Amino acid sequence: MKEIAPARGVWPPAATPFCADLSIDFERYVAHCKSLLADGAHGLAVLGTTSEANSLDLAEREGALERLVAAGIPAEKLLPGTGTPSIGDTVRLTRHAASLGVRGVLLLPPFYYKSVSEDGLFAFVSEVIGRVGRANLQIYLYNFPQMSGIAWSPALVGHLLKSFPKTVVGLKDSSGDVAYTSRLLESYPGFAVFPSSEALLLAALKRGAAGCISATANTQVGAIRALYDGWQGADAENLSRAASAVRLLMQKFPLIAAVKAVLAERLRAPDWARVRPPLDPLSPAERKELAAELAKIAAEAPA
Amino acid sequence: MKEIAPARGVWPPAATPFCADLSIDFERYVAHCKSLLADGAHGLAVLGTTSEANSLDLAEREGALERLVAAGIPAEKLLPGTGTPSIGDTVRLTRHAASLGVRGVLLLPPFYYKSVSEDGLFAFVSEVIGRVGRANLQIYLYNFPQMSGIAWSPALVGHLLKSFPKTVVGLKDSSGDVAYTSRLLESYPGFAVFPSSEALLLAALKRGAAGCISATANTQVGAIRALYDGWQGADAENLSRAASAVRLLMQKFPLIAAVKAVLAERLRAPDWARVRPPLDPLSPAERKELAAELAKIAAEAPA
Repeated sequence: MKEIAPARGVWPPAATPFCADLSIDFERYVAHCKSLLADGAHGLAVLGTTSEANSLDLAEREGALERLVAAGIPAEKLLPGTGTPSIGDTVRLTRHAASLGVRGVLLLPPFYYKSVSEDGLFAFVSEVIGRVGRANLQIYLYNFPQMSGIAWSPALVGHLLKSFPKTVVGLKDSSGDVAYTSRLLESYPGFAVFPSSEALLLAALKRGAAGCISATANTQVGAIRALYDGWQGADAENLSRAASAVRLLMQKFPLIAAVKAVLAERLRAPDWARVRPPLDPLSPAERKELAAELAKIAAEAPA
Repeated sequence: MKEIAPARGVWPPAATPFCADLSIDFERYVAHCKSLLADGAHGLAVLGTTSEANSLDLAEREGALERLVAAGIPAEKLLPGTGTPSIGDTVRLTRHAASLGVRGVLLLPPFYYKSVSEDGLFAFVSEVIGRVGRANLQIYLYNFPQMSGIAWSPALVGHLLKSFPKTVVGLKDSSGDVAYTSRLLESYPGFAVFPSSEALLLAALKRGAAGCISATANTQVGAIRALYDGWQGADAENLSRAASAVRLLMQKFPLIAAVKAVLAERLRAPDWARVRPPLDPLSPAERKELAAELAKIAAEAPA
């Protein structure tokens, strides 16, 4: 079996648009995913936190992947999230994604029970890998303790890497904890670590990061791609500053709602602003403030 | 349609036994549920936290309920947990449970996204109730912020009660926060509040609580039933002390693993001690310590 190198580059966690009845708006979804790829994304980290995947039911998650592939998006450009609190549902989603030929999957820890041990988390991942039973499966651990309540500790990452060296190949770090990212990069050279913010990307690339999986790549994938391509060049600091300005502004707002508000405004498609409960859309005042601040950043940017 | 009063009494959150391959051991499961009812339980709050329901996949949760009903346990004695992070899967489990004729369902808040607003949580519950579409559905909110990361605030509970007075009829409070329980009981007379510990039961009954849904009811349902029946009698303090001693000891250990360890020992069925990842069983040293401390409590009890 051919061994495939871990993913690298800019993999936006594509936002998921909803119709008025809260079902997925597939036409907009496919168009958005294609435009992200056309604008420079190396691939798409679909069905993660920004995609509101945990607000989709299991059948919708499977259906969304199938629609993207059927619409002509190459499966090897997809890194879907498949983590759930149970071994069974995680195996179901992971097998389904693998059967479509995706590049790999992003795996949240089982996120209901808290204060679980590293042995318990190791046993969970080990059961999932064994039951999925695909030698060429690539798993990227998804670290977002602010949401999941569970962190993949560097020691546990090391244990998993040692036990499943061809399967556990990377990690998306949404913690924003630079020391954590750095520790992983120093401890495990070749492990594909993706920070979740373009504002942390330049420093992370200098330490060996694989790329970036950022919510705000939904709205500025080109700027992030330029930074990824140019990070060793003379203009790196300017590219980083430009991408970071938008990110640092947007993360002052509820981030998923802010991403969707920007897409709604830019595409003149108010429906894009819709989120699924329990999330709320931005208030009109927040939308106005965000738009004004983004316009200010655009006006200050060098031509 | 006949209106059914909210549940009252002792409703153990039945533990779920697993076979060596981690599948549900239905023979033991049915026997355990029947013995809890025979020993004094008014009904069973199956498929909650203690039942490791969030470590079961959706199909298993449905299958487990069906097996209990098929085995002759009256559906009106079942209060299954049906909460998931998504509207769709929550509606699926709730409709399924309602179709079997259960007494009501326990509803966790959507527990992936954190820092969500009360409006967002209200919208979630409102969508679930609307989509389930059964006028006689009884929902008991399930408050366990230590696990779910989300609390049902008294203000939100009031909002839900006012909007869905025949549907949102009670709450299981696993927070252990006595002030919270008291505030609900004072603010919403008639609302069926169940503390999750027999050590808090006597005080809660005096304030108007409906009963108790306690993990340790799996191991001492008779003692809790005696307290529930006798709380206004001369022996109430002694009954409370007896039930509380076991509870306060067991909650010094990881509680679900401790409950299963006690059942394994008592039923001479080592398989009962098995838990699903990410949980761990008690270590041999913990099991020994727990057994010794329980024996001490039993020896000290009045004959």
